Amino acid sequence: MARRSMREQIVDAAVDRFHARGFNAAGVKDITDTAGVPKGSFYNHFSSKEDLAVVALEKYGASRRLQDLEDTSVEPLVRLRRYFEFLRDEIVDLKCTRGCLFGDFGTEIVDHSEVIREAVGQSLQRWATALSGAIREAQETGTVSADIDAETMARFILNAWEGTLISARSDRSADALNPFFDVVFGTLLR
Amino acid sequence: MARRSMREQIVDAAVDRFHARGFNAAGVKDITDTAGVPKGSFYNHFSSKEDLAVVALEKYGASRRLQDLEDTSVEPLVRLRRYFEFLRDEIVDLKCTRGCLFGDFGTEIVDHSEVIREAVGQSLQRWATALSGAIREAQETGTVSADIDAETMARFILNAWEGTLISARSDRSADALNPFFDVVFGTLLR
Repeated sequence: MARRSMREQIVDAAVDRFHARGFNAAGVKDITDTAGVPKGSFYNHFSSKEDLAVVALEKYGASRRLQDLEDTSVEPLVRLRRYFEFLRDEIVDLKCTRGCLFGDFGTEIVDHSEVIREAVGQSLQRWATALSGAIREAQETGTVSADIDAETMARFILNAWEGTLISARSDRSADALNPFFDVVFGTLLR
Repeated sequence: MARRSMREQIVDAAVDRFHARGFNAAGVKDITDTAGVPKGSFYNHFSSKEDLAVVALEKYGASRRLQDLEDTSVEPLVRLRRYFEFLRDEIVDLKCTRGCLFGDFGTEIVDHSEVIREAVGQSLQRWATALSGAIREAQETGTVSADIDAETMARFILNAWEGTLISARSDRSADALNPFFDVVFGTLLR
């Protein structure tokens, strides 16, 4: 495997530290320590923690596996369910101690940083668009009702997922994920 | 009107500062300055910022008007819609620059403070219980389907609301609230 550049090491550490601690509590030194690079090297690569946060959001976004939502070899409703099961398993593996970096920044920092606000908004929009594609396919094949348009439904379901993570972290319990699966796959998409 | 005690002034300022800035970014001095009291007076009333945060959550919770959800003089479905319109109007008045204090703490700080985690969990549970009462009434009168039990539906809708606020803040647009009303009152509760 090719050796990661110092910049890549900092970005990976930032995703981990921002995800674990949030924007304000994750300091530059915490991030460079986690990356195993000198703190002084930070400003060779990034102009600010805010600048790094935007790159970290992109890197985190790439781990959301949006391509799985576009895999037309899998029946759209099966694909949607598997997709949220992937998200669920990730959270359960972390014992419900982390949420979604988009939602984290979307509550903590979007009111205070215009560049992060725009990056979170675009990240959520890309995600909703990928979801809406699979929902639209399911509507076209008649497996899902077309009463609500696919974009509206996608954004609603994504919002519901983000809020579900708040419940799961607050209860520190995977049971808090059940209402999402019950309502989304028992009522909304069926 | 009775003069508020110094403790009440600090709690009111804390709700405002935590809501505007989050737990980490709202410092004790910021809170006491907003309250118009000397910083030194803080520790006469609270042992820590964490201790104050729990009291601020209670105060914020009292402003959620849960009693409106229990007003049986109003038809349950009308009551539920009016309730979320009250929450929506509050956010629109703030130009979508704040969310819900439960959701804010539920992303930023619950993984790092056991007492705050428990307080957020209980706050959300109380809210879901109040919502489920109105949903159950609507199910009993036959205006809402009983396919999904009232507690599950209440928690799901509350989660969806919390996530909707993330979208509204990230887009800084009241339009981001529409999918919630379209799906909740167009499909789930009807």
